Amino acid sequence: MTSTDDRLARLALTLLTEPGDPRLSDLVEEIGAAEVRDHLLAERDLNGVRSDIATRLDDIDPARVLREATERGMRFLIPGDAEWPTQLDDLHHAEPVFDRGGPPLGLWVRGPLDLRALALSVAVVGARSCTSYGDELAAQMSAEVAQGGVAVVSGAAFGIDRAAHRGALAGDGHTVAVLACGVDRAYPAAHRDLLDHLARHHAVVSEAAPGWSPTRIRFLSRNRLIAALSGGTVVVEAAVRSGSLSTANWASRLGRQVMAVPGPVTSAQSEGVHELLRAGGATVVSRAAHILEAVGGVGEHLLEAPRAPTRPRDRLPIRDQQVLDAVPVSHPAAAASVARTAGVALTEVQHILDRLDQAGLVVRLDSGWRLAAAARA
Amino acid sequence: MTSTDDRLARLALTLLTEPGDPRLSDLVEEIGAAEVRDHLLAERDLNGVRSDIATRLDDIDPARVLREATERGMRFLIPGDAEWPTQLDDLHHAEPVFDRGGPPLGLWVRGPLDLRALALSVAVVGARSCTSYGDELAAQMSAEVAQGGVAVVSGAAFGIDRAAHRGALAGDGHTVAVLACGVDRAYPAAHRDLLDHLARHHAVVSEAAPGWSPTRIRFLSRNRLIAALSGGTVVVEAAVRSGSLSTANWASRLGRQVMAVPGPVTSAQSEGVHELLRAGGATVVSRAAHILEAVGGVGEHLLEAPRAPTRPRDRLPIRDQQVLDAVPVSHPAAAASVARTAGVALTEVQHILDRLDQAGLVVRLDSGWRLAAAARA
Repeated sequence: MTSTDDRLARLALTLLTEPGDPRLSDLVEEIGAAEVRDHLLAERDLNGVRSDIATRLDDIDPARVLREATERGMRFLIPGDAEWPTQLDDLHHAEPVFDRGGPPLGLWVRGPLDLRALALSVAVVGARSCTSYGDELAAQMSAEVAQGGVAVVSGAAFGIDRAAHRGALAGDGHTVAVLACGVDRAYPAAHRDLLDHLARHHAVVSEAAPGWSPTRIRFLSRNRLIAALSGGTVVVEAAVRSGSLSTANWASRLGRQVMAVPGPVTSAQSEGVHELLRAGGATVVSRAAHILEAVGGVGEHLLEAPRAPTRPRDRLPIRDQQVLDAVPVSHPAAAASVARTAGVALTEVQHILDRLDQAGLVVRLDSGWRLAAAARA
Repeated sequence: MTSTDDRLARLALTLLTEPGDPRLSDLVEEIGAAEVRDHLLAERDLNGVRSDIATRLDDIDPARVLREATERGMRFLIPGDAEWPTQLDDLHHAEPVFDRGGPPLGLWVRGPLDLRALALSVAVVGARSCTSYGDELAAQMSAEVAQGGVAVVSGAAFGIDRAAHRGALAGDGHTVAVLACGVDRAYPAAHRDLLDHLARHHAVVSEAAPGWSPTRIRFLSRNRLIAALSGGTVVVEAAVRSGSLSTANWASRLGRQVMAVPGPVTSAQSEGVHELLRAGGATVVSRAAHILEAVGGVGEHLLEAPRAPTRPRDRLPIRDQQVLDAVPVSHPAAAASVARTAGVALTEVQHILDRLDQAGLVVRLDSGWRLAAAARA
């Protein structure tokens, strides 16, 4: 079996079946694509596949499909190709959901980007009908993630998907659209310019053959592909039933990082995100640095938790603070009075007051102690 | 030792020491309050306590303090009193933080509410300088929580605390303010009316003796008390360094539910909340029902996750959906064509089409099948 045979056999199977049919990927894994194809064409059945594809058997011509697609600037990647994203192999080990599962038999690609770039990538997905909050955040975070050298994967849909691609472009990074239809089709049609731009400078990817329209089953398959291609999935806004949650679910099942950007709890567009967080299915991310820390290169993006600026008094031991709190702002008090207010032993208070004096936090006057200007801030 | 002795001994110790000093609660637990007091008054030391309190020993008069406070409508509860909130015992088992820890030696209370009402309660805390988002949510959630029969505990501070008390009042439920100063003082002064109202109809609680002013150490002690009195703590808005996060930390250490209301990630007032969530220190709550589910009476407030309204097609098996998706909207198609588009076996498609027909989702015409109006919705 030459590589061309394997490619044409896999292509034939993708033309005969719906993407993500785990029966097919299992069979191909077991006996090879050419054997599966030949078996089915010889009117023999394998796990019920033949009856499903019977009506399609007559008019497929993989060689012609490949030739015409190649002429139109598309390529059909298969496992073993240098460019094949090997992270898709993880799909071998995940149980199917809604009858979809398994790694793709092949990937149609339009665009110059080598898909190995997705070794460092994150999916940014979310609501189609997003709010301006989600739109701006998805774009801003994607821009910063892309600037950080991490490619942004999304589905080219309205709303968050579009903002993610647009942001990555603004951040001058790589971005890949994974479609439920053929890579030569524009879905949604309003995103034709965006998809053409991605195909010229980045990549548009699909399991579905050129010309195929998007259907429910292909969207379900596509979601698993977005999750499997990326190092993690970020959900920015999602209503309670949102396709992006199925992507998050796949990411989780594949051991990928699942991240969620919270929003106002008063927003229906964040309700699905909050339910995902409540279920323990995702980590909160509130800025791009959190995403880079999770999916960026090893050790490259380690992040310290944000800290409010500390005042000098905050660095004091608690008993020193207790004494400092007992020192009057303006009318000086004797050490014994400070000790009484603080509830700290007088001898200790005297030591602490000396320390606070050296630190410039209290002032010693003839009549006693009062706060220095620095401690009043 | 009579109960009056114990009460006066504990009161003496609270006048001599700062609230939440774990040395005191440990000693009292071990040898009793009267013994600790007598030991200290006899100029003997116990774990360094005597030197801390030396300057206060001369002018305390517990009996007078108790008499005057009682005349002014305050009471001093101690363990063993019927009204004592026994959930405070959990503080025995938690390690001190910032030198504060242990259960209170006693509790000053102003107001008619029996503190046993706090057996069903939740703390609602957060930023002093909150946004209108946080203010409205805290009030709304507290109102619904109170309506659900759960008392709302907070600290009477500006911002979220005030909104929490106000909301609980609007919800016609119980609410308790836990102060860092004496229960007879109004801190902040702007909340005098609120505190007076709580003292008339609910309760104001503190470890600090009447007349005492709020200090840093008393705020730290107060936060542990808010956490320990309530069945859980909800943080609504918190900047990166916020006292409410110390309350959440105490709640967590005491095995209480810790809940956090997320907000826009663009809001500094939600940054501390999101960091708490990122650290895995809290569960997301986005409405009062979530809080009631967590702290409400057993089985009373069980909650189903929200579901978007399902359409008839969403309840179909996935292969039925696959076939339905392949049925044309207007121009009828033969079953073989539907099977080809769906990638499902023709015999199965024929069965499924019959089922879909019975469900009113497709229409059979002479020329084939098309969608029914119900499936187009």
